[in-house]
Amino acid sequence: MSFLRSPFNPLIKPGDVIPTRSDFEVICAFNAGVARYRDEVILLLRIAERPQNRDPNIHLCPIYDPVNDKMVILEFAKEDPRCDFSDSRLVRTDAGLFLTSISHLRLARSHDGVHFEIEDKPALFPANIYENYGIEDPRITGLGGRYYINYSGISDIGITTCLASTEDFRSYQRHGVIFYPDNKDVEIFPEKIDGKYYALHRPSPSSLGRPEIWLAESPDLLCWGNHRHLMGLRDDCFDSGRIGGGAVPFRIDEGWLEIYHGADRNNRYCLGAVLLDAKAPWRVLARSRRPIAEPETEYEVNGFFGNVIFSCGALYEDGKVKIYYGAADTCMCYAEMPLAEILSSLV
Amino acid sequence: MSFLRSPFNPLIKPGDVIPTRSDFEVICAFNAGVARYRDEVILLLRIAERPQNRDPNIHLCPIYDPVNDKMVILEFAKEDPRCDFSDSRLVRTDAGLFLTSISHLRLARSHDGVHFEIEDKPALFPANIYENYGIEDPRITGLGGRYYINYSGISDIGITTCLASTEDFRSYQRHGVIFYPDNKDVEIFPEKIDGKYYALHRPSPSSLGRPEIWLAESPDLLCWGNHRHLMGLRDDCFDSGRIGGGAVPFRIDEGWLEIYHGADRNNRYCLGAVLLDAKAPWRVLARSRRPIAEPETEYEVNGFFGNVIFSCGALYEDGKVKIYYGAADTCMCYAEMPLAEILSSLV
Repeated sequence: MSFLRSPFNPLIKPGDVIPTRSDFEVICAFNAGVARYRDEVILLLRIAERPQNRDPNIHLCPIYDPVNDKMVILEFAKEDPRCDFSDSRLVRTDAGLFLTSISHLRLARSHDGVHFEIEDKPALFPANIYENYGIEDPRITGLGGRYYINYSGISDIGITTCLASTEDFRSYQRHGVIFYPDNKDVEIFPEKIDGKYYALHRPSPSSLGRPEIWLAESPDLLCWGNHRHLMGLRDDCFDSGRIGGGAVPFRIDEGWLEIYHGADRNNRYCLGAVLLDAKAPWRVLARSRRPIAEPETEYEVNGFFGNVIFSCGALYEDGKVKIYYGAADTCMCYAEMPLAEILSSLV
Repeated sequence: MSFLRSPFNPLIKPGDVIPTRSDFEVICAFNAGVARYRDEVILLLRIAERPQNRDPNIHLCPIYDPVNDKMVILEFAKEDPRCDFSDSRLVRTDAGLFLTSISHLRLARSHDGVHFEIEDKPALFPANIYENYGIEDPRITGLGGRYYINYSGISDIGITTCLASTEDFRSYQRHGVIFYPDNKDVEIFPEKIDGKYYALHRPSPSSLGRPEIWLAESPDLLCWGNHRHLMGLRDDCFDSGRIGGGAVPFRIDEGWLEIYHGADRNNRYCLGAVLLDAKAPWRVLARSRRPIAEPETEYEVNGFFGNVIFSCGALYEDGKVKIYYGAADTCMCYAEMPLAEILSSLV
């Protein structure tokens, strides 16, 4: 499969990004939402920061305090037997989970699609009780001259999906929680179908069911319903552990093409593709049997969380699918694929 | 607290209900949705059935097969070490969870509110892939001359909330899945507020967050959004383990009164009450510190799943709150409480 990686990869690395505080460090710049805006490609990056830690005996967890509008740093002793530090991304305690970093969204602009100017300040920063552990993994959907940004709001209350919007990528308006816990990987379709908005979403049930892809409809982008189970895990495939939507789906002659992610039980994240019916997007017409992209390069295999290719946005232009993707939960990369090759691989 | 139990309790017992098949037995008749319809009180009972089992060496799990529209009975050997039978309600296996009974909804009618005639046939029976493990715990909300019935759709895909409606409690229309997995304990408010429908709901997140009560709004009863976390668990109270809405909320002078359920970490289910602002139902004005009802009688303490009082509906008439409730996940009961006494207990 021709997953043509840019020679400039990684396009953006953590060291390229200015932290929001002098005592913080940026450890990940990845999983960006993507839009074409005028003559520029816009990336809305997820930037994960953590407090600089000079004490080898403690772990630090940053939390945003929405009541006092300030960052709080929790300390956990590495020798504390009540704490589990085995996952680099979090600390497990009797009092619940805490994250070792906190994410916000940061804008980057490019004329050629591979060289980006990154803004110095956040575009969207945690701002309320649904975001006190950070905001993550945005997707951008252009609709009627406005750009709708949905992102994961992470907090001790749960993992929600929140909606914001902008006309100019300078000022942003928040619209509230559109999917309650646990839900991630929401992609709003860029056109109405038969008068209704549609979105892919990925609930993570706590008892029956598995982390799989559902479809919802909406009259107003804020309220979502008529939920339908769209596609499931496959025990013998690259997507045996969890799946979720990736890039915002785009319209081609054959229907809607969705680049999704599938992880196996070892948490190796690959990209797959699925073709949905143009007028009835709850109908799966064809789906990748094998990944269209899998982690192979050094920057995809090694990082904050290795063996991950994860896309939150792609552009379909000139017959090419231009895929922006986070690599190893660390940096931002780019690859191109001929549409025909993706389509011919679907079964 | 004056939780005045009816001397006719339990009003309805499993033996009062005719099973849907001669080789099935009804084991639970409980957790009914409640409505006043003309001069009758309507109960929409949850009826749990299971195959009669004459072989002491096996467990049986009934599943509805929507493709072939028939019931399938799975057999599990009691000596199979891969199966966990420790919870009477289910069998845990490597291939997932299976329930030991399957529920449908059955209508019962009464003129005096305590003596009921139970129909011979189901009102609503599992009918699609979201319901193959059964349908459970209905709530009924009257709105604009129509009665909206939401219920839990249980399946191997997850625990959803589905919507149906009726004008006459004879014919029913299904409207699809309104809350994706995991979500239970949905109560739709019986009036629009400022042009919007509102509902309580109870997500069960798989990672961050706990089983707590949220509020959602809707333009059309089908699509729900602007989700807000309404109220949480309290570590030192009767509701330290899980909470969820119970009866459909009803309007009083002071706001909206909601009778909810709270369980502690030992799965002892009590009723509490919460008062919500009349025009801003996302504002909690007052809440029970102690239960307004707790399992005490023999039929509440002992049963299919003991120590449970669980209400899906109440009527507020003549200054009295008429609470219908499932007892011990087995039978249907009734109690009255003076509204003033509930209100004076809230803090």
